[in-house]
Amino acid sequence: MKKVEVVIVGSIGLDTIETPFGKAENVLGGSAAYASFASSFFAKTGIVSIIGKDFPQKNLDFFEEHGIGIEGIEKSAKGTFHWEGKYGFDVNIAQTIKTELNSLADFNPQLPESYRNADFLFLGNFDPEKQLQVLSQMKKRPKLVVSDTMNFYISSKPEKVLEVVKTADIALMNDAEARQLFKTPNLVKAAKKILELDSEFAIIKKGEHGCLLFSKKTHFAAPGYPLENIIDPTGCGDSFAGSLIGYLAKTKNLNEKNFRKAIITASTIASFNAEDFSLNRLSRLKKTEIKNRITEFKKITKF
Amino acid sequence: MKKVEVVIVGSIGLDTIETPFGKAENVLGGSAAYASFASSFFAKTGIVSIIGKDFPQKNLDFFEEHGIGIEGIEKSAKGTFHWEGKYGFDVNIAQTIKTELNSLADFNPQLPESYRNADFLFLGNFDPEKQLQVLSQMKKRPKLVVSDTMNFYISSKPEKVLEVVKTADIALMNDAEARQLFKTPNLVKAAKKILELDSEFAIIKKGEHGCLLFSKKTHFAAPGYPLENIIDPTGCGDSFAGSLIGYLAKTKNLNEKNFRKAIITASTIASFNAEDFSLNRLSRLKKTEIKNRITEFKKITKF
Repeated sequence: MKKVEVVIVGSIGLDTIETPFGKAENVLGGSAAYASFASSFFAKTGIVSIIGKDFPQKNLDFFEEHGIGIEGIEKSAKGTFHWEGKYGFDVNIAQTIKTELNSLADFNPQLPESYRNADFLFLGNFDPEKQLQVLSQMKKRPKLVVSDTMNFYISSKPEKVLEVVKTADIALMNDAEARQLFKTPNLVKAAKKILELDSEFAIIKKGEHGCLLFSKKTHFAAPGYPLENIIDPTGCGDSFAGSLIGYLAKTKNLNEKNFRKAIITASTIASFNAEDFSLNRLSRLKKTEIKNRITEFKKITKF
Repeated sequence: MKKVEVVIVGSIGLDTIETPFGKAENVLGGSAAYASFASSFFAKTGIVSIIGKDFPQKNLDFFEEHGIGIEGIEKSAKGTFHWEGKYGFDVNIAQTIKTELNSLADFNPQLPESYRNADFLFLGNFDPEKQLQVLSQMKKRPKLVVSDTMNFYISSKPEKVLEVVKTADIALMNDAEARQLFKTPNLVKAAKKILELDSEFAIIKKGEHGCLLFSKKTHFAAPGYPLENIIDPTGCGDSFAGSLIGYLAKTKNLNEKNFRKAIITASTIASFNAEDFSLNRLSRLKKTEIKNRITEFKKITKF
């Protein structure tokens, strides 16, 4: 079996989601589910997560069928993490109806031995103290550590979040999170603060509006792919993160030019993800479709 | 004197604005003020608007000094239109504290004779019935009519707004307005509805996130210019509209390729506008600065 190149640590859950375009109940979700699947288009990927006793075997089979390593998925005697959310007219804003942490409350990520030499590590959105613990389990410093966070941890543990930002090579944030963490309405200023914390690159995600990449010398503004057939935006940020790290693992080049390509590729995967509930669209996504949409991305941004 | 090529119809006002970066009281504002000044970088521009008896002469002198025609500015015995607004942490959202229409309530635009042959007409954001009346005053159909609107008219006179969209060549809208007018959360679908109403192009503005251009065949996604020194976003939409029509009047080419260039140029002017209150930044803006920022725009969007 191929060695795992990308380790994805995060949640796996069963989501119930309502959007203006439909409803899905108890479907496969969670940051690690989306991120690992997106990464697996480009590199051998393994998940580190926790599930409950109610988690359907078919979902585990689904990961395995797509070549994703599941040996790092712990089985708890409790229930599986459950998120219930709703999107209104502005699909950029998720309204949480219910969050049942269940087994995720006990999540104490333990990396399988064979994952501890991986070169690419994604720390999904969970407790920043545990994100730091995961990093300490690695036998050597990975070539690239990408982290994610959320407003809940920025409010409750800002110092620890800043430590993760400092430790990771890329700390992903969306615009609202960056504004909150660095107490500035100005995204460029927020990005500069990220860079000052010893990051080589800062990426600020803006949902359907694309994202910004900053380095000490320059920056890159990527528009979002204009989506006609949006069904459910859940997991787009995680799909973006997963394909970003997967693409970089595949191409093994961490210069700014390749980061731009990685961002466009990741935006492309995320745009497909929004076209159906759960992992439905990604699971039937073909490599030619990815290639064609990247070509289209080039056309629609040229001036 | 050079013949007016671009006619800008809209409000002139005295604004009182508070942002997280400062405050300005009773400063020159209004859609026609911003749009005409932005247009005047590229083409001979004339304003059609109304002011009150309290309107400072120095503001009229300011327009004249910059070569902007003021013969279409009517003087009323009432006060000048006054808008008071505040921006919070998310500078994309203006909070209106007070709107005093004053003389603007009686605004019944009358185009000066010499403006009625102009090839480029911008109908700023005012009553859609009056926008249609302005168009009927033209001796010949202009080569390009660009219109703007706002949520107030979309709620109160949706049928008339749709008539303006149908009549104009380009109906500018921001994302929220497009969603509201066409009752869809999907911007691509909203844009297609604009195109169905017999528009050749649809432009949807997304504030700091840039804008989208749609034609029947293709589309263009322009990111916003990432702003480090934002002071006041008031008038950015109007500066965008004014420089768009001014650039097209100067280059006299209405194909899609040139529209893309016009949009990037207009985004550039709008980005400068946000760097100070009122027209302060635009009034000291140099052509080399515009050129340099367009070059930078190219660099930051390349992948």
